Amino acid sequence: MVDVSSNVPRPIETAWIIAIGSEMLTPFRSDTNSIYITEKLNDLGVEVRGKTIVGDNHVELGNELRHAVGRVDAVFLTGGLGPTEDDLTREVIAQVLETPLVEDVKIVDQIRTRFSSRGLRMPDVNRRQALLPKGATLLPNPRGTAAGLWIHWRDKIIVALPGPPRELEPMFDESLWDRLRNRTRDMCLSRRVLRITGLTESQVEELTQPIYSPWQNKKPPIATSILATFGRIEIHLSVRTATETEGLALLDRAVQDLAQTLGSSLYSSDGRKLEQVVGDLLCARKWKIAVAESCTGGLISSRLTDVPGSSDYFEMGVVAYGNDTKIKRLAVPKFMLNEHGAVSESVAAAMASGVRSNAGTELGIGVTGIAGPAGGTQEKPVGMVVFAVETPDRQEVRTMRFYGGRELVNYQASQFALDMVRRILEDRD
Amino acid sequence: MVDVSSNVPRPIETAWIIAIGSEMLTPFRSDTNSIYITEKLNDLGVEVRGKTIVGDNHVELGNELRHAVGRVDAVFLTGGLGPTEDDLTREVIAQVLETPLVEDVKIVDQIRTRFSSRGLRMPDVNRRQALLPKGATLLPNPRGTAAGLWIHWRDKIIVALPGPPRELEPMFDESLWDRLRNRTRDMCLSRRVLRITGLTESQVEELTQPIYSPWQNKKPPIATSILATFGRIEIHLSVRTATETEGLALLDRAVQDLAQTLGSSLYSSDGRKLEQVVGDLLCARKWKIAVAESCTGGLISSRLTDVPGSSDYFEMGVVAYGNDTKIKRLAVPKFMLNEHGAVSESVAAAMASGVRSNAGTELGIGVTGIAGPAGGTQEKPVGMVVFAVETPDRQEVRTMRFYGGRELVNYQASQFALDMVRRILEDRD
Repeated sequence: MVDVSSNVPRPIETAWIIAIGSEMLTPFRSDTNSIYITEKLNDLGVEVRGKTIVGDNHVELGNELRHAVGRVDAVFLTGGLGPTEDDLTREVIAQVLETPLVEDVKIVDQIRTRFSSRGLRMPDVNRRQALLPKGATLLPNPRGTAAGLWIHWRDKIIVALPGPPRELEPMFDESLWDRLRNRTRDMCLSRRVLRITGLTESQVEELTQPIYSPWQNKKPPIATSILATFGRIEIHLSVRTATETEGLALLDRAVQDLAQTLGSSLYSSDGRKLEQVVGDLLCARKWKIAVAESCTGGLISSRLTDVPGSSDYFEMGVVAYGNDTKIKRLAVPKFMLNEHGAVSESVAAAMASGVRSNAGTELGIGVTGIAGPAGGTQEKPVGMVVFAVETPDRQEVRTMRFYGGRELVNYQASQFALDMVRRILEDRD
Repeated sequence: MVDVSSNVPRPIETAWIIAIGSEMLTPFRSDTNSIYITEKLNDLGVEVRGKTIVGDNHVELGNELRHAVGRVDAVFLTGGLGPTEDDLTREVIAQVLETPLVEDVKIVDQIRTRFSSRGLRMPDVNRRQALLPKGATLLPNPRGTAAGLWIHWRDKIIVALPGPPRELEPMFDESLWDRLRNRTRDMCLSRRVLRITGLTESQVEELTQPIYSPWQNKKPPIATSILATFGRIEIHLSVRTATETEGLALLDRAVQDLAQTLGSSLYSSDGRKLEQVVGDLLCARKWKIAVAESCTGGLISSRLTDVPGSSDYFEMGVVAYGNDTKIKRLAVPKFMLNEHGAVSESVAAAMASGVRSNAGTELGIGVTGIAGPAGGTQEKPVGMVVFAVETPDRQEVRTMRFYGGRELVNYQASQFALDMVRRILEDRD
């Protein structure tokens, strides 16, 4: 492509992201859209040079847009496309680019139709959403009333996207990706994510550092980073190549090298979550699962059933908080609760066994523990959780101690329970 | 205090935060320090006008610092104070302020001592950390080698803090807080959050706009913003006053005005989540609750039991995915499943009734629906969810249609179910 004038957009190599919304300048919300956009732009070989968050403030947004558009090839704005007075993106773009706002009657109709299909009248404020900077191309929004905008300005591109992730993400994938692809140089960023459990971050680092360290000096280099959140560690690999095939082949070899070292601690290298891995293993054996939870309160069932198609193998979950429920619904013997307490290996085992026999499934899980903040003792502290898994040919029981608040303890416990099931189904320790 | 020259810093009312580090421009890391700093600054009555993230890049950082220092009273930089070549903050500040970098011998000694106390020799690179823009005041770092900086420049303040939260946070609290307190007007920022359900964002806007609009011209003005995520809408109010008492009194009146208009759609104005509101209502009546879930797969139980102390009122949850479980564990009559299908008002009612009688609780919930992506029909599309709540003196059944993917449908369904319970317990419609 030859640039015949300065008004022909140049290939996009650099980008700036501006997130708009006063709520993201409070301690209560943060901008997560830019993470999604960055990942997609990197896939297209575009480098994000910076990100800014500004409030719903005419002057600040104008300043920021002017500042960003001078520094990079493409500016991505998120938020401020709603119908309320706070939503300034359309106006500010028009002002900065010195172009008028015009009402698009087709959009008014679309918004009206969207409301009437739900039996609602379009509120007058929503008309604001049909005002567009002249010359803007619309990016349709199948999930909401806020259309996105694609604007050529001099040799730059300005893109405006709605704030809610569930509107932004499909719009990016369905309407924006191809447009961007046509404007970017043909380099391709390939990625793989390895998901690990049962090791600490430093253990993973010690094991893998001798393997990945030399990759940084190769041509092309494979970038590696280790990310740790509670109960879950990820190794992210990426490489930039001319073709996707070439990139994926390089990463395949890298994954194999790491997998050998990590052994059974590696549960996924293809993007699947732990609950999906467990689901696939159950499907492969044609087994069904039932879950009895006390402290985790339904989280294990909820994670398992978040997987589409889980009705094929998920039969029943019981959240048994009270002792009565444990006795009546899970046939936990009363003497066990009295002698060992609700948080004990024998009770966990009885819960797994009870739910398995009640549901008539091959596999049963029992989890009982002290999520906190109250209820801990010296012998059984907050964060202590007992796990049992029963199958036709084995029973396993484990006691663990987790740290963090109530939600973190429960999340880690759900992760540990799912991982126990995975290891049993994979027949690994 | 009387300003005798333009070089006397003025009281800090506005701030900008610049986070420095290329890793925060990848999809793998985000800036969390700014959340901490924002909270502290708000406590001091300082408003954060914007946040920027830039890479370890001389030009971008210089641009950004110049841009920010022109817009606010104080600029907070985080990161880039380490010993490596990537760490540019000191140099860039010196360059932007046109002031020389000078080596502080005391710092060299401190760093050397820090290393030798661990039996290590100070690497030469660490000398870079003793180079400071002339006139800068040091903020000691008890947890690392990177000292922070406090700089007066014209009538502005520039603060540089280390990137690792475990170094930044104690430095802020121990060395920075008092300095800032001396520079801020004795003003206090108070906040309230109203949580709403059962209305769309535009409906909330239409209802409340006439009420909050005049507040913006009052003295002091009450700032209002409306935030919408699925099944949940929030109104954030904030006001800046001399004392907290004054601020909270103003907000109390504002909340009352909005509450009157919003009626039963307002479920919380004191920070409580919906599941906490439901829990408190159950406690007040000394009632217990049991939950039978199909499509939501344990999410309702999980949300209810995320509340500390929920064991006082949460008795039992059953996740009944298969028809067999619905029949055997919840006593749903087989003919109903055959005649009306698993997703029907009669089955939802039978589930609520079954789990209530099994658990022996006052309140029972039954939820059944089609979360997708598969399983929808023309008559019963994906996103259709049926709800039933049974108590000693009433039974309510509702059919709803939600949009979005599997997880969003389930989240909205859990929100709707909890809200039904709330309205019944509050005896409101």
